[in-house]
Amino acid sequence: MDRYDRLNQLGAQNPLPASPDEAVLERVANPCDAPYMVRLVAPEFTSICPVTGQPDFAHLVVDYSPKDWIVESKAFKLFLGSYRNHGDFHEACTTGIGQRLVREIDPLWLRIGGYWYPRGGIPIDVFYQHGTPPEGLWIPDQGVPPYRGRG
Amino acid sequence: MDRYDRLNQLGAQNPLPASPDEAVLERVANPCDAPYMVRLVAPEFTSICPVTGQPDFAHLVVDYSPKDWIVESKAFKLFLGSYRNHGDFHEACTTGIGQRLVREIDPLWLRIGGYWYPRGGIPIDVFYQHGTPPEGLWIPDQGVPPYRGRG
Amino acid sequence: MDRYDRLNQLGAQNPLPASPDEAVLERVANPCDAPYMVRLVAPEFTSICPVTGQPDFAHLVVDYSPKDWIVESKAFKLFLGSYRNHGDFHEACTTGIGQRLVREIDPLWLRIGGYWYPRGGIPIDVFYQHGTPPEGLWIPDQGVPPYRGRG
Amino acid sequence: MDRYDRLNQLGAQNPLPASPDEAVLERVANPCDAPYMVRLVAPEFTSICPVTGQPDFAHLVVDYSPKDWIVESKAFKLFLGSYRNHGDFHEACTTGIGQRLVREIDPLWLRIGGYWYPRGGIPIDVFYQHGTPPEGLWIPDQGVPPYRGRG
Amino acid sequence: MDRYDRLNQLGAQNPLPASPDEAVLERVANPCDAPYMVRLVAPEFTSICPVTGQPDFAHLVVDYSPKDWIVESKAFKLFLGSYRNHGDFHEACTTGIGQRLVREIDPLWLRIGGYWYPRGGIPIDVFYQHGTPPEGLWIPDQGVPPYRGRG
Amino acid sequence: MDRYDRLNQLGAQNPLPASPDEAVLERVANPCDAPYMVRLVAPEFTSICPVTGQPDFAHLVVDYSPKDWIVESKAFKLFLGSYRNHGDFHEACTTGIGQRLVREIDPLWLRIGGYWYPRGGIPIDVFYQHGTPPEGLWIPDQGVPPYRGRG
Amino acid sequence: MDRYDRLNQLGAQNPLPASPDEAVLERVANPCDAPYMVRLVAPEFTSICPVTGQPDFAHLVVDYSPKDWIVESKAFKLFLGSYRNHGDFHEACTTGIGQRLVREIDPLWLRIGGYWYPRGGIPIDVFYQHGTPPEGLWIPDQGVPPYRGRG
Amino acid sequence: MDRYDRLNQLGAQNPLPASPDEAVLERVANPCDAPYMVRLVAPEFTSICPVTGQPDFAHLVVDYSPKDWIVESKAFKLFLGSYRNHGDFHEACTTGIGQRLVREIDPLWLRIGGYWYPRGGIPIDVFYQHGTPPEGLWIPDQGVPPYRGRG
Amino acid sequence: MDRYDRLNQLGAQNPLPASPDEAVLERVANPCDAPYMVRLVAPEFTSICPVTGQPDFAHLVVDYSPKDWIVESKAFKLFLGSYRNHGDFHEACTTGIGQRLVREIDPLWLRIGGYWYPRGGIPIDVFYQHGTPPEGLWIPDQGVPPYRGRG
Amino acid sequence: MDRYDRLNQLGAQNPLPASPDEAVLERVANPCDAPYMVRLVAPEFTSICPVTGQPDFAHLVVDYSPKDWIVESKAFKLFLGSYRNHGDFHEACTTGIGQRLVREIDPLWLRIGGYWYPRGGIPIDVFYQHGTPPEGLWIPDQGVPPYRGRG
Ligand SMILES: [Ca+2]
Ligand SMILES: [Ca+2]
Ligand SMILES: [Ca+2]
Ligand SMILES: [Ca+2]
Ligand SMILES: [Ca+2]
Ligand SMILES: [Ca+2]
Ligand SMILES: [Ca+2]
Ligand SMILES: [Ca+2]
Ligand SMILES: [Ca+2]
Ligand SMILES: [Ca+2]
Ligand SMILES: [Ca+2]
Ligand SMILES: [Ca+2]
Ligand SMILES: [Ca+2]
Ligand SMILES: [Ca+2]
Ligand SMILES: [Ca+2]
Ligand SMILES: [Ca+2]
Repeated sequence: MDRYDRLNQLGAQNPLPASPDEAVLERVANPCDAPYMVRLVAPEFTSICPVTGQPDFAHLVVDYSPKDWIVESKAFKLFLGSYRNHGDFHEACTTGIGQRLVREIDPLWLRIGGYWYPRGGIPIDVFYQHGTPPEGLWIPDQGVPPYRGRG
Repeated sequence: MDRYDRLNQLGAQNPLPASPDEAVLERVANPCDAPYMVRLVAPEFTSICPVTGQPDFAHLVVDYSPKDWIVESKAFKLFLGSYRNHGDFHEACTTGIGQRLVREIDPLWLRIGGYWYPRGGIPIDVFYQHGTPPEGLWIPDQGVPPYRGRG
Repeated sequence: MDRYDRLNQLGAQNPLPASPDEAVLERVANPCDAPYMVRLVAPEFTSICPVTGQPDFAHLVVDYSPKDWIVESKAFKLFLGSYRNHGDFHEACTTGIGQRLVREIDPLWLRIGGYWYPRGGIPIDVFYQHGTPPEGLWIPDQGVPPYRGRG
Repeated sequence: MDRYDRLNQLGAQNPLPASPDEAVLERVANPCDAPYMVRLVAPEFTSICPVTGQPDFAHLVVDYSPKDWIVESKAFKLFLGSYRNHGDFHEACTTGIGQRLVREIDPLWLRIGGYWYPRGGIPIDVFYQHGTPPEGLWIPDQGVPPYRGRG
Repeated sequence: MDRYDRLNQLGAQNPLPASPDEAVLERVANPCDAPYMVRLVAPEFTSICPVTGQPDFAHLVVDYSPKDWIVESKAFKLFLGSYRNHGDFHEACTTGIGQRLVREIDPLWLRIGGYWYPRGGIPIDVFYQHGTPPEGLWIPDQGVPPYRGRG
Repeated sequence: MDRYDRLNQLGAQNPLPASPDEAVLERVANPCDAPYMVRLVAPEFTSICPVTGQPDFAHLVVDYSPKDWIVESKAFKLFLGSYRNHGDFHEACTTGIGQRLVREIDPLWLRIGGYWYPRGGIPIDVFYQHGTPPEGLWIPDQGVPPYRGRG
Repeated sequence: MDRYDRLNQLGAQNPLPASPDEAVLERVANPCDAPYMVRLVAPEFTSICPVTGQPDFAHLVVDYSPKDWIVESKAFKLFLGSYRNHGDFHEACTTGIGQRLVREIDPLWLRIGGYWYPRGGIPIDVFYQHGTPPEGLWIPDQGVPPYRGRG
Repeated sequence: MDRYDRLNQLGAQNPLPASPDEAVLERVANPCDAPYMVRLVAPEFTSICPVTGQPDFAHLVVDYSPKDWIVESKAFKLFLGSYRNHGDFHEACTTGIGQRLVREIDPLWLRIGGYWYPRGGIPIDVFYQHGTPPEGLWIPDQGVPPYRGRG
Repeated sequence: MDRYDRLNQLGAQNPLPASPDEAVLERVANPCDAPYMVRLVAPEFTSICPVTGQPDFAHLVVDYSPKDWIVESKAFKLFLGSYRNHGDFHEACTTGIGQRLVREIDPLWLRIGGYWYPRGGIPIDVFYQHGTPPEGLWIPDQGVPPYRGRG
Repeated sequence: MDRYDRLNQLGAQNPLPASPDEAVLERVANPCDAPYMVRLVAPEFTSICPVTGQPDFAHLVVDYSPKDWIVESKAFKLFLGSYRNHGDFHEACTTGIGQRLVREIDPLWLRIGGYWYPRGGIPIDVFYQHGTPPEGLWIPDQGVPPYRGRG
C-alpha cells in the first residue's frame, strides 16, 4: 500500500506551524475513483480578531469531493492550528481556508461552513463553496445546530 | 369571586412604568391554603449595562410558594418592563427582582434564576433564593438548557 | 376479574360533564398491594380565564401512589373535560384538580404539575403535592421540558 | 490592512442610536471576491407594539451574499438597538430591517427571518428575501427550532 | 399610521364567537409591498369529534404570503376559539380554516399544517395548500417535531 | 352529515381481525375537494419474523393525498392490529400495508415509512411510494429521528 | 466458564411462551460479588386491554442489583413476549413483571418503569420498586423522555 | 414461502469471517416489484487504521433501492464484522462496503454514509452513491446528527 | 455607584496576558449581601498539551457564591486567554483556574467543570469544588450535555 | 515538570495489547492535592459475546476521584482496546474494567457506567461503584441519553 508510506505527520509529532503560509498540508492518494463526498468537522478552531487583538473561536465543517487526493486529518489539524496567532475577519479566515484546500488537493468541488462564537451576543456564520458538485453527487446538509442564545 | 374584581391590569392596557421603583406590582389573593409552588418564566427581559450603556438581555425563571398572595402575570410583565432603561449589573438586577417580589407578596419561599445572554462570548447566570422552602414542598429543577456556544 | 366489570366508561361513550362538580370519576380496585407510583399525562387540558373570558390551555402531569383505588384513564379524561367552560386562575384549577383526585381515590400520596401556555409571553406553572410519599417510594422527576420562548 | 482602519465602532463605545433612521451602519470592504454567504444571528431584538405600547421581542437571522461590503457585527448590533423605542408591527420591522441592510451594503442577495415571541400564545414569524441568490450559492436552512408551546 | 386605528380587537376584550361562521376576522393593511412570508403558530386549538362528542386538540401552523392584508394575531386567536364547540373531522377543520383565511385576506399563497393529538394512539396530521407561491418566495419548513409515541 | 353515520367502528368496540386479509378497512367520504395531504403515525405496530417466529416491532408513518375517501383512524388501527400474528419480512409488511391502503381508498398518491426496531443491533427502515404526487402538493418530510444506537 | 454452558436460549431459537405463567426465565450466575446495578430496556412490549380487547404497548425499563443471579436478556425477551395475548391493566402488568423477576432471580433490589402508549390521548406510566437499595448503590435516573403530546 | 428457506444465517450461529473477501453476503428475493427504498443502520462498525494500527469506529447508514434481491440483516452484520481486523482509511472502507453491496445484490441504486469517530478531535464522514435513483423514488435524508464536539 | 468606576477592562481594549501568572483578574464589589450563586460559562478555552505541544480545547463552567467580590466577565475572559500558550494537563489547568479564582475573590464556595475536547476519541472532564456551599444555597446542575461520540 | 517525562505512550505508537491481562496501564502523578473528580468517556468499546462469538459494543463512562495517580487517556484507550478479542458478559466486562482501574491507580473512589448496544432489541446497562466518595466531592450525573428504540 504505497499510498500510505509518504505520510509522516500521521504517526509522528509535529510542532504547530507559525502561520497558515508556513503550514504544509500533507495529502493521500484518493483510494476510490467513483465520485464521493468527504466531510471534515473541526470544532477546535481559533484565530485572532484583527481589530481588538482578542481570540476568536469557530466550529468549521468542510465538505469536498476528492479527485486525485484526499486530505489527511492530522495534517488538516496542524494546518488549522497555524491560524492560532493569525489576525483576520471571520469572512476572510473561512473563505481563505476553503481556497487553500482547493489549491492543495484540487478537489472536484468543495465547500466550508464557518460557525463562529458570538461577540456582543451576535455570532457570524460564513458559507463558501468552490466549483460545481459533480453530477449526481450526494451532499447531505451540514446540519450544524443554529445558535440558540439563551432560554 | 371577589378576589378577581380589584384586578385592573389584567384586562386593561397600561403604559410601561419608567423605572422599577415606579412600577406597581398587582397581586391576587392566594386561592389555595395548602402549600404549593408557582413558576413564572419571563424569556423577554432587557436592562442596560451600567458601564457600556449597551442593552443586556436575560431569560428569567421565578419559583415561589405563595402565602396570602399570588403574583398576577400581567402585572409581573409590566414590572419587568420597568427595567428597560435601568442600568445595573446582572447580579444586582437578578437579586433585586427577587427581593422586590418578596417585599410585594411575602411568599413562604422564593428563588429566581437569571440566565443572561453572553458578552464577549461568556454568559453569566445568577441564582438567588429567599427563605427556606416549606416542609415537603415539591420543587422541580428549573431545567433551563445550559449555554451551548457553537457547534 | 370482578374488579373490571363495574367499569362502564372505558368501553362506552359518555357526553362531556357540564362542570367539574357534575363530573363522576370512575375508579378501579388497586391490583397491587405493594406501594408503587402511577403517572397520568394530560396534554389536552383547557379552561377559561375568569377575567378575560378567553380560553386557557395547559399540559397536566399527575403522579400518585394508590392505596385501594386507581384512576381509570377514560374517566380521568372526562373529568378533565368538565373544565372546558369552567372559569378560574391557573393556581386554583391545578390545585383543585389535585384535591378532587385525593377526595375521589384517597391515595397514599399525590402531586400534580400544571404547565400552562403563556399569556403576554409569560407561562405560569403550578406544582401541588398532597401528603408525604410512602417510605422508599420511587418518584422520578416529571421532566416536562422548560418553556423556551423563541430562538 | 487598510480595509480595517476606517472602523471606529468595533473597538470604541457608542451610545445607542435614538431611532433606526438615526443609526449609522458601518461596513467593511468584502475580503473575498468569489460569492459566499454570511449569516448574522441576533437573539436580542426588541421593539414596541404600535397599538398596546408594550415591548415586543424577536430572534432575528439575516443571511446575505456580499458584493463590495460586509456588515460589521458591532455596527449591526447598534443598528438593531435603535429599534428599542420604535413602534411598528412584526411584519414592518422585519422587512424594514432587511430593506435597510440592502440599501446600506447593496448585497448580491439577502434574506431575513424574524421569529417573534408570542402574544396571547400565538407567535408570528416573518420571512423576507431580496433579489435572487447568485448561481450556485450554497444557502443552508436557518434551522431555527419551531415554537413548541408547552408539554 | 391610519392602517392601525380601525383595529379594535387588539387592545380591547372580546367574547369568544359562538361558531366559525359567526367569527369576524379583523385584518390590517399589508405594510410591505415586496413578497414575503408570515407564519402563525397556534398550539392551543380545540374542536369536537363529530362522532364521539369528545374534545379534539391540535397544534396549527399557518404560512401565507400577504397581498393587500395581513392577519391580526388576536383576531386570528378569537377566530380559532370559535371552533371550541364545533364538531368536524380533523381533515375538514384544517382545510376549512385554511380556506376561510383565503376568503378573508386573499393572500398570494397560503398553507396550513394541522398536527392533531392522538386518539387510540394514532395522531393524524393534515397539510393543505392554496395557490402557487410567488416566484422566489422563501418558504422554510414548518419543522414541527414528528409524533414520538413513547420511549 | 350523512358521511359520518355509516361509520360503526369509531364509537363501537371491535375484536382484532385474525389476519390482514380478514381485516375490513372502513373509510369516510373526503370532506375537501382541493388536494391536501394526510399523515397517519402508528408507533404501535407488531408482526412476526417469518424465520425466527419472534415478534418484530415498527413505527409506521403513512402520508397520502385523498381523492374520494379518507382513512378512518380507528379502522386503520384495527387493520394494523391484524398483523399481530402475521409472519413476513419488514420489506413485505411495509410495502404490503401501503398497497392495501391504495386498493381500499384509491388515493391520488400515497407513501409509507416503516421504521423497524433493531435485531442484532441493526434496524431496517423501508420507504415505499405509490403514484406521483398531485402538482403543487405540499409534502413535509416525515422527520422520524434516525436510529442512534447508544451513547 | 461453566456458568455459560447451561444457557440454551441465547444461541438457540425458542417459540414464544403462550402466557406469562408458562414462560421459563433462564438466569446466569452473577459474575461479580461487589454490589452493582443492571438496567434492561425493553421498548417492544405489548399486552391486551382487559376491557376493550385491543392491544396495549409500553416501553419498559428494569433496574436491579443482582445477588446470586443475573437475568439473561434473550430469556427476558421471551418472557416479555409471553404477555402478547395476556389481558390486564397497565398497573397490574408492570408490577406483575417486577414481582415475577424478584421471584426468579431474588435480587438485592429491583425497580421497573412502565411507560405506556396513550389511549384517548392520555399515557399512563407505572413505577414499582421492590426492597431497599444496598448501601452506596449508584442508581442513575431512568431518564426516559416525558410524553410530549403534539407541537 | 420458498424465498425464506435458503436462509441459513438468520436462525443459526456463524463465526465472524476473517476478512471482507472471505465474508459471504446472503440475500433474499425481493418481495415487492414496485420500486422502494431500504435503510440499514449499523452503529457498531470497527476496522483498523492502516498507519497507527489502532482501532477505528464508525456509524454506517446504507440506503438502497432493491431490484431482484434484498440484503438479509444478519448476513450484513456478519459481513461488517469481517472488517474487525482489516486495515484501511475511512474513505476506502466506506466506498468499499458500498461497492461490495452493489456487486452482491445489484440494486437499482445505493448510497452509504460513513460517520467515523474523531481522531485528534476531528471526525471524518464519507458519503458514497452508486447509480441514479429510479424515477420518483422517495429518499428521506439520513439525518444522522452532526458531530458536536463539547459544550 | 462608585463600585463601577475602578473597572477599566470592561470598556477598554486589553492585550492578551502572556501567561496565567501575568494575568490581572479585575473584580467588582458584591452588590447583594444575601448568599446567591453566579455561573460563568466559557466555551472558548484553549491551552497546550505539555507532552505533544498540540493545542487542547475545553468548555469551562464556573459556579461560585460571592462574599465581598464578584468576577467581572471581561477580566475573566482575559485571564482565561492567558492560558493560550500555557502547557499543562487537563486536570492541572482546571483545578488551577478554580484555585486562582478562589485566591482572587475569596468566595464563600466555588466549583469548576472542565469539559475537554477528545483526543484519540476519549474526552476527559474534570470537576473541582472548593469549600462547602453556604447553608440553603440553591445550586442547579451544570447540565452540560454528555459527550455523544457519533451516530 | 518531571511528572510528565516517564510517559512514553502519549507521544509514541503502541501495538494493541492482546488481552486485558497483558495490557499495561500507564499513570501520571496527580497534579492537585485537593479532592476532585475526573470523567473519562469511551464511546468506542468492543468485546466478544462468550456464547455467540459475535462482537458486542458499548459506550463506557468512568468517574473517579484520584488520590496519588491519574489515568493517562491514551494508556486508557490502549487498555480498553485489549478487550477487542476478549469474551465475557456485559456485567463481567464492565465491573472488571472498574476493578482493574482501582487496582492500577488506587483512587479515593470510582464508578463506571457501561451502556451496551442492544441485542434482540434489548440493551443492557451496567453501573458499578467502588468505595465511598470523599466528603463534599461534587459528582454530576453521567447523563448518558436513555436508549430510545424507534419512533
Ligand atoms: Ca436536505
Ligand atoms: Ca431564546
Ligand atoms: Ca458575546
Ligand atoms: Ca461546542
Ligand atoms: Ca403569549
Ligand atoms: Ca433528579
Ligand atoms: Ca404541546
Ligand atoms: Ca428546506
Ligand atoms: Ca418509541
Ligand atoms: Ca428535506
Ligand atoms: Ca453512538
Ligand atoms: Ca391516544
Ligand atoms: Ca440524579
Ligand atoms: Ca479525538
Ligand atoms: Ca438536581
Ligand atoms: Ca438488537
